[in-house]
Amino acid sequence: MTRTEVLLKIQVVNFHKKLPFMKSVYNFSAGPSCLPEVAINGAKIAIENFQKNGISLLEMSHRSSPVVNLFAETTDNLKTLLNVPDNYHILWLQGGASTQFSMVPMNLIPENGSADYVDTGAWSAKAITECQSVGKVNIIGSSREAGYSYIPKDLVRTSGASYIHITSNNTIYGTQYKNYPALDNDDSFLVADMSSDILSGPLDVSKFGLIYAGAQKNMGPAGVTLVIIRSDLAEINYRNIPTMMRYSTHVLKDSMFNTPPVFAVCVVNETLKWLKSIGGLNGIKQINNKKAGKLYDEIERNTLFKSHVSEKDRSIMNVPFIFCDNKIADNEFLQFCDKRGLKTLKGHRSVGGFRASIYNAMPGSGVDALIAAMQEFESRYI
Amino acid sequence: MTRTEVLLKIQVVNFHKKLPFMKSVYNFSAGPSCLPEVAINGAKIAIENFQKNGISLLEMSHRSSPVVNLFAETTDNLKTLLNVPDNYHILWLQGGASTQFSMVPMNLIPENGSADYVDTGAWSAKAITECQSVGKVNIIGSSREAGYSYIPKDLVRTSGASYIHITSNNTIYGTQYKNYPALDNDDSFLVADMSSDILSGPLDVSKFGLIYAGAQKNMGPAGVTLVIIRSDLAEINYRNIPTMMRYSTHVLKDSMFNTPPVFAVCVVNETLKWLKSIGGLNGIKQINNKKAGKLYDEIERNTLFKSHVSEKDRSIMNVPFIFCDNKIADNEFLQFCDKRGLKTLKGHRSVGGFRASIYNAMPGSGVDALIAAMQEFESRYI
Repeated sequence: MTRTEVLLKIQVVNFHKKLPFMKSVYNFSAGPSCLPEVAINGAKIAIENFQKNGISLLEMSHRSSPVVNLFAETTDNLKTLLNVPDNYHILWLQGGASTQFSMVPMNLIPENGSADYVDTGAWSAKAITECQSVGKVNIIGSSREAGYSYIPKDLVRTSGASYIHITSNNTIYGTQYKNYPALDNDDSFLVADMSSDILSGPLDVSKFGLIYAGAQKNMGPAGVTLVIIRSDLAEINYRNIPTMMRYSTHVLKDSMFNTPPVFAVCVVNETLKWLKSIGGLNGIKQINNKKAGKLYDEIERNTLFKSHVSEKDRSIMNVPFIFCDNKIADNEFLQFCDKRGLKTLKGHRSVGGFRASIYNAMPGSGVDALIAAMQEFESRYI
Repeated sequence: MTRTEVLLKIQVVNFHKKLPFMKSVYNFSAGPSCLPEVAINGAKIAIENFQKNGISLLEMSHRSSPVVNLFAETTDNLKTLLNVPDNYHILWLQGGASTQFSMVPMNLIPENGSADYVDTGAWSAKAITECQSVGKVNIIGSSREAGYSYIPKDLVRTSGASYIHITSNNTIYGTQYKNYPALDNDDSFLVADMSSDILSGPLDVSKFGLIYAGAQKNMGPAGVTLVIIRSDLAEINYRNIPTMMRYSTHVLKDSMFNTPPVFAVCVVNETLKWLKSIGGLNGIKQINNKKAGKLYDEIERNTLFKSHVSEKDRSIMNVPFIFCDNKIADNEFLQFCDKRGLKTLKGHRSVGGFRASIYNAMPGSGVDALIAAMQEFESRYI
């Protein structure tokens, strides 16, 4: 059993007790963010001598069989974890979700076509802007007026729209879809930016025509983007698109049309192996619910803090919270946490306050340490 | 003095003598390819605990000051090494040269405009294809008919063309510009794909409007692409382009419009520091000339092998060679080398034979070991 697994087991029984070998620094960054310790160790070994080939993975050709096998294994691990149906392709690309904001409409909306978008925050807004320079965008739901504090429901799909685009989890505002929009007919499908909650729990991939996710939250380091695309959609050819922006380019070449980000994919694979070892997506979902539940409970209980997010839409990945009133400066609590090794808790500038990003790899002991800090800080003011 | 530096000094005095601590495996891959040992060590340390922050670089936010400083330092090191004039921006992007093939014409050719391209092989051809879906391409020189065995000279520029595009070094065919095309007026400029010879020697950047290079040959691991762009060119706005494909996007945000490939940039920085420590680009040019000179001399001398590349255009980075006749199967020599730890010497399928990629990080001892193998192999047949 690895140290990370031990920690994960321990967090279930030890709630607030700090054990001597617990990490001294907890990184609550919204992304790039903490990774499983086994993945970091795997990365180190790959850099020293990949699979005992005598060469660092950083130096290996993407055409060499160890690297080709690495990609096949990573894809296979992802398919197994997410239970991806056979009629989907897995792509490992570059350029982040920001590139997907353009690739999705360029590939999937015909000339003079449109797509439905749900506006749940800054990232949705960027996806909408990029789509608008390709085709018509129908905003079928938005919580902008309410400071993006909830997920819009009861969406009405536009007839003829190519897809419904959602941002499954909103890092800045701390909202997350608990139920995805219903599809009204067999031809309709969802497209989702899942950058910040992919692999946080089980998923019915068949509802989605395309899922994309930057790796740097729940999967690995920055520099690789996962795309899961239904095979019929990868064959669409509506317009003149740069070769690198066409999904079919990457499908035909198994993500090796050009030199892919090999090392980042290796770290993703290490993370996927870790996820499998701790019970897959059902296992991690339980752990995530427990971590987030404890933290939200403390926010509710603590007399100093509050959440501004609609209760039923609260994210289990990003937990923003603010002071109940403005008597205490945010920086005071941030410095208090920083001294305890609780890092990067500052809320996004558009929201203020605090944000604890508690992705898959954040150990329960990190959440416990944050709760303990919140309680200790509270005791100063009571 | 680091081990790599020691090796580099030793190679000058010890020509064919194998020293006990020399590497047991030499990786002649065309890319991704061998990296300086100090860069690999630096990468390992960054993964363990970046700058003693208690966090792996793989987990650190690109907005954190250590990462912002890392990017500034990397840019600064590159500017110093290449003596980049003040009116140029340095960008660290994703997507490889393959993405630049499209970005260059999309950004730099006006509607109904054209650009001049020199066709020196497979990579030039790809750049040309991508440009053709944006604007008119004038092929002002090509060595295609001669199997790309030389660099076309005496180019005549097309009036009104936006730029002259060249591929400075051709990995497959082993040709390299020794003198860049002359510019006929003050408004004209070169655009160069320098993926496979950037930083191999000093360069007059002021002749170029834009230089791009995937990192995975002379700079670092796959996953980051260097762009050097003259500042006035970054402001051009000819057409509707996806935000991520617009140079101005990345200039305005110092390569942090979206999450950049942080780790790959760190390894690039380690490589740049190594280059500075061994005498910068003048130093490495001397070493490269010596390594390549020895290898070409052996190819000329050895009765079994020959080069098919025009002598004055031979690359100091990629050295393809073939058997003088077809009495011996290529695989026999490849296996002979493989047993001696001389790896990935197989020539590109379109050329056949052998290819020794001897980028900056290939120690002289690797070239010496290859020469020794060629001589030993020859002795079997004399």
